[in-house]
Amino acid sequence: MSSKEVARKRFIDVFDELVEELKEILVSYKMPQEAIDWFVKNLNYNTPGGKLNRGLSVVDTFAILNNRTADKLSDEEYKKVAILGWCIELLQAYFLVADDMMDQSKTRRGQKCWYLVEGVGNIAINDSFMLEGAIYMILKKHFKKDSYYVDLLDLFHEVTFQTELGQLLDLVTADEEYVDLSKFSLDKHSFIVIFKTAYYSFYLPVALAMYMSGISSESDLKQVKDILIPLGEYFQIQDDYLDCFGTPEQIGKIGTDIKDNKCSWVINQALLKATPEQREILDNNYGKKDDKSEETVKQLFKEMNIEQIYNDYEESIVEKLRKQIDQIDESNGLKKDVLTAFLNKVYKRSK
Amino acid sequence: MSSKEVARKRFIDVFDELVEELKEILVSYKMPQEAIDWFVKNLNYNTPGGKLNRGLSVVDTFAILNNRTADKLSDEEYKKVAILGWCIELLQAYFLVADDMMDQSKTRRGQKCWYLVEGVGNIAINDSFMLEGAIYMILKKHFKKDSYYVDLLDLFHEVTFQTELGQLLDLVTADEEYVDLSKFSLDKHSFIVIFKTAYYSFYLPVALAMYMSGISSESDLKQVKDILIPLGEYFQIQDDYLDCFGTPEQIGKIGTDIKDNKCSWVINQALLKATPEQREILDNNYGKKDDKSEETVKQLFKEMNIEQIYNDYEESIVEKLRKQIDQIDESNGLKKDVLTAFLNKVYKRSK
Repeated sequence: MSSKEVARKRFIDVFDELVEELKEILVSYKMPQEAIDWFVKNLNYNTPGGKLNRGLSVVDTFAILNNRTADKLSDEEYKKVAILGWCIELLQAYFLVADDMMDQSKTRRGQKCWYLVEGVGNIAINDSFMLEGAIYMILKKHFKKDSYYVDLLDLFHEVTFQTELGQLLDLVTADEEYVDLSKFSLDKHSFIVIFKTAYYSFYLPVALAMYMSGISSESDLKQVKDILIPLGEYFQIQDDYLDCFGTPEQIGKIGTDIKDNKCSWVINQALLKATPEQREILDNNYGKKDDKSEETVKQLFKEMNIEQIYNDYEESIVEKLRKQIDQIDESNGLKKDVLTAFLNKVYKRSK
Repeated sequence: MSSKEVARKRFIDVFDELVEELKEILVSYKMPQEAIDWFVKNLNYNTPGGKLNRGLSVVDTFAILNNRTADKLSDEEYKKVAILGWCIELLQAYFLVADDMMDQSKTRRGQKCWYLVEGVGNIAINDSFMLEGAIYMILKKHFKKDSYYVDLLDLFHEVTFQTELGQLLDLVTADEEYVDLSKFSLDKHSFIVIFKTAYYSFYLPVALAMYMSGISSESDLKQVKDILIPLGEYFQIQDDYLDCFGTPEQIGKIGTDIKDNKCSWVINQALLKATPEQREILDNNYGKKDDKSEETVKQLFKEMNIEQIYNDYEESIVEKLRKQIDQIDESNGLKKDVLTAFLNKVYKRSK
């Protein structure tokens, strides 16, 4: 196994332990077996199976903050920080199970969406609730005695609410049925991606590792937030860009944002500079389900030089973030490397 | 206005203030107006409008524990305890919005279910998340500085998870499509009603009022839990009984448990004493959507004397609870009257 595979396996082993612990809680309640089996299946089907970037980055961040590499963490220490990582993965599972129902998606991570699994259907709503509920059962068991326990709870609550706000704005802005480009704007796009993605995917892992490391003054949390939120926004803009301009080999799927009437960064940039004639083409073709309309839109994006706008944006945001990272005050134990590691993962992705 | 109406109005006024406060949080995030409007509509449509028993009982319990009547509480004190009451109502709203989707219900509290409101649909899933999310935003704003803040969070987490467990068992036990009475049992019924209803409707309001009153030792919480959980079970058994044997005038609706294949206390009692012939009648008629099958089942229940079994159960559980209440240790400030008030509300209801 490569060292990356070893790291992944060590992380996944902790999840198996958590499933056992959660099962024990249900057993202690004398829950009937069929419901225990259902809950375990829900956990295993929906939580691992993704790239685990968010969860693993809690471990990596903790290691950097403590001047070690992840493989040098003791088993006890490793398990504790990995549990925080799994709490993010559970939070994501909670959102994804529900998002797939709201978007009527068909597959997720190479398997049927949970609500489409035989016998599940709308029970998936309660299952998503239980994925979230599991977070707090786990946190209580493993962190109740720590001085920062209440900080972890407040952080999960705040980030959860922010993600829900982002999802709400996304849902009321992009209706798959009625295409109305006048509802879009770059401001809304920015709000959606920051709230729906950046807080839980970028700020949350780092903040959790900081609390566990005792490096969690308000000013240190602000320092990382001020970098990770725009970095998360950049990540999502890149995602939007690749959905439209990336090859299937590059992104591992076929982009569908144009057909799905998504409030993407790309369409918002196009709307910003479209002539009345170009706007009409967009109004008539964006969000249509046929290949020809999609191709017309893509052609127009090319003519409008959206690729150049993206490249300029990317160079300028990366430069700005590098400068910001460079100015980080490390005197309380915070490390620039934490942020650099995140930036390099995102910047490399598009190359 | 009657004193009851005055009390209700004072309570509802606090909700209007909470909606303003939640709106302010969204404004501070610079959330676009259309999403703020949506969230406010979600809060107002789904949270008040019920009987508010759970919310009001936090206020009443707090008043008893503090040797006053609710109308003698200062405005500041009243608002704070009423907020805890509204957090339970928000928790209930979160469950009901989702339950109605899972059960494909049509109406709730005399209006269309939220997911059936024009333009809502599956967005209701995220809306239910936000009703839960609002609880923790409110608790943080109003209780962060109190010594029992973390206790409130742990309590809400635990009770939420328990309610979800009850809902899960209910969902996997009673399938509306495939009737299979062998899946039912009195043990399962007991687990479902205790987890799905008793914890959040009976234990939670009293425990919240106890924390705020500083009467919250483990032994005092155990004393009330040991009474309120069986009392909540009794309440739900009564509900099941009335669904089948109550007149529409008595219960304000037409019972549908038989047609809906519900794992009700009534069918479980019948299954317990059914002869093979009676069991066949139940297998062939329970859970069928037609009036004739329902009438056949009701007739059989009458022949089997389920009414008598219920009356015996009620007398015995009430006697047992009264004895338990009588033995409560009041030396740490707990009051028997808290429990008596709850018992009297339930016992009177069936008369």
